[in-house]
Amino acid sequence: MKAYLDCYPCFFVQTLKTMRLITRDEQKTWKVLKAVSSHLAQMSFDSTPPEIGRQVYRIISDITGVEDPYKELKDKCTRQALELYPEVKDKIKKAPNRLEAAVKAAIAGNMIDFGAQAKFDIKADLDQILGQELAVNHFPQFSQMVQKSNGVVYLADNAGETVFDRILIEEMGLPVVYAVREKPIINDAVMQDAVAAGIDKIAQVVSSGSDAPGTILEYCSREFLDILEKASMIISKGQGNYEALSELQKPVFFLLKAKCPVIAQDIGVPEESIILKGSETKESVTIIKTQN
Amino acid sequence: MKAYLDCYPCFFVQTLKTMRLITRDEQKTWKVLKAVSSHLAQMSFDSTPPEIGRQVYRIISDITGVEDPYKELKDKCTRQALELYPEVKDKIKKAPNRLEAAVKAAIAGNMIDFGAQAKFDIKADLDQILGQELAVNHFPQFSQMVQKSNGVVYLADNAGETVFDRILIEEMGLPVVYAVREKPIINDAVMQDAVAAGIDKIAQVVSSGSDAPGTILEYCSREFLDILEKASMIISKGQGNYEALSELQKPVFFLLKAKCPVIAQDIGVPEESIILKGSETKESVTIIKTQN
Repeated sequence: MKAYLDCYPCFFVQTLKTMRLITRDEQKTWKVLKAVSSHLAQMSFDSTPPEIGRQVYRIISDITGVEDPYKELKDKCTRQALELYPEVKDKIKKAPNRLEAAVKAAIAGNMIDFGAQAKFDIKADLDQILGQELAVNHFPQFSQMVQKSNGVVYLADNAGETVFDRILIEEMGLPVVYAVREKPIINDAVMQDAVAAGIDKIAQVVSSGSDAPGTILEYCSREFLDILEKASMIISKGQGNYEALSELQKPVFFLLKAKCPVIAQDIGVPEESIILKGSETKESVTIIKTQN
Repeated sequence: MKAYLDCYPCFFVQTLKTMRLITRDEQKTWKVLKAVSSHLAQMSFDSTPPEIGRQVYRIISDITGVEDPYKELKDKCTRQALELYPEVKDKIKKAPNRLEAAVKAAIAGNMIDFGAQAKFDIKADLDQILGQELAVNHFPQFSQMVQKSNGVVYLADNAGETVFDRILIEEMGLPVVYAVREKPIINDAVMQDAVAAGIDKIAQVVSSGSDAPGTILEYCSREFLDILEKASMIISKGQGNYEALSELQKPVFFLLKAKCPVIAQDIGVPEESIILKGSETKESVTIIKTQN
């Protein structure tokens, strides 16, 4: 998905939000905003939002020297999510359709996002989403695919959300390769966030090689592209992965909440909708390897 | 008032909003966003928001060739406001304190703002504001000043709002010089908007000389600076004039609604508050003339 016009102001909102986590030095923040401005003035908007986001966050870390401004918030979210884990497991046990409830829990986890949203309340959002209808509902196809697949490549999104991914992984009962970002980017999960959520106990955790806030194939490692190439089923969490992979010709299911008007418009649903969207093409098509 | 960090993304939101009035050509809009980006990357943020806004809107009109993108909307707002005029006059007649009600009506008129707000409903906003308490309430001083002044210089803000200004002017019963912008800028009132609202029948309408969305003294004409210099009382409408003149050492009353978090923070009130704020200094101090 290419960037929309509305993404433009949003990159500055995100820059400002991140700078406020890093410093109270207004002069430094002006400097970063101007550097982002200068960069965006030059760049091609044929790019996807995670591609541009990657560059924006690199400017921030280059100027401030802070590599992982969301570290503390990520740890906090994982702790909060782990506290909720037993309660969510219990809710899923009692649900009429356990797999569907686990899918919704995984989407509820996607609420944990400092990039796209200012405020959230994990517990309240969870309850709300478990009772919410899927605006795009490819659950029958999803359920069928879970039945027949011998494994899943699961593309992680945010730290904390990882705990809810774990619940879905446990419910599917399939071998899972769980792919996280190579380096810290916004609040996206890296290796240690997956481990903190306990994913390493139930799945193989790997880095995608991408340091963008989305699984951009040209930044992925050869090893990970091989894994993706062979996947019989892919689960892609969140907006960033959707933005990066919406045109991927693979059997992929996108699980996300449409948190911004741009994504909502792209998918054709109202904002705040929850989505389980399967890719149109079911056949496995070769992924072009552009790196290494 | 200098620009705050939060103004930065907002200039892009405003650019996008204005471009959508002008064209559906996305490539042209990207071009304008990039040109604004490039400009903001170079500029000093010691400037006030209307100073920066002026430059942003000039970039838009330079690239698109459209001088007055809000023309149609301004005319529509004036028509809508004129339809409400008899009803508002009637409400004020019945109010326990007519002058205070007229002040609130003038502030309600300040809701008409395509620059700061996406949507508004003149009639609903009016009713709401007439019943709302002033968050900064210098009405006693205002009322006293109206009693003892022999005239008012009234700094207009938006087209349509002009109709509500007319109501306050009629209620004060003082000679008024009503100052509008020199050229179209966002939806700010220019001469013809004041005339369309019927202000010319009850006041002397002049141009301030400023083509910024605020009365920036260095852009004002010598004639207007003379008028301001001699004023025994000034009424300043809206955010843009507040941003430009908040540090003016003159007997000025700012009438506005705090429509954005930046203004609310600067004044120290919650967002959406309605304000009647007198300047601290009551003595007349020489205004530095920097032009002509």
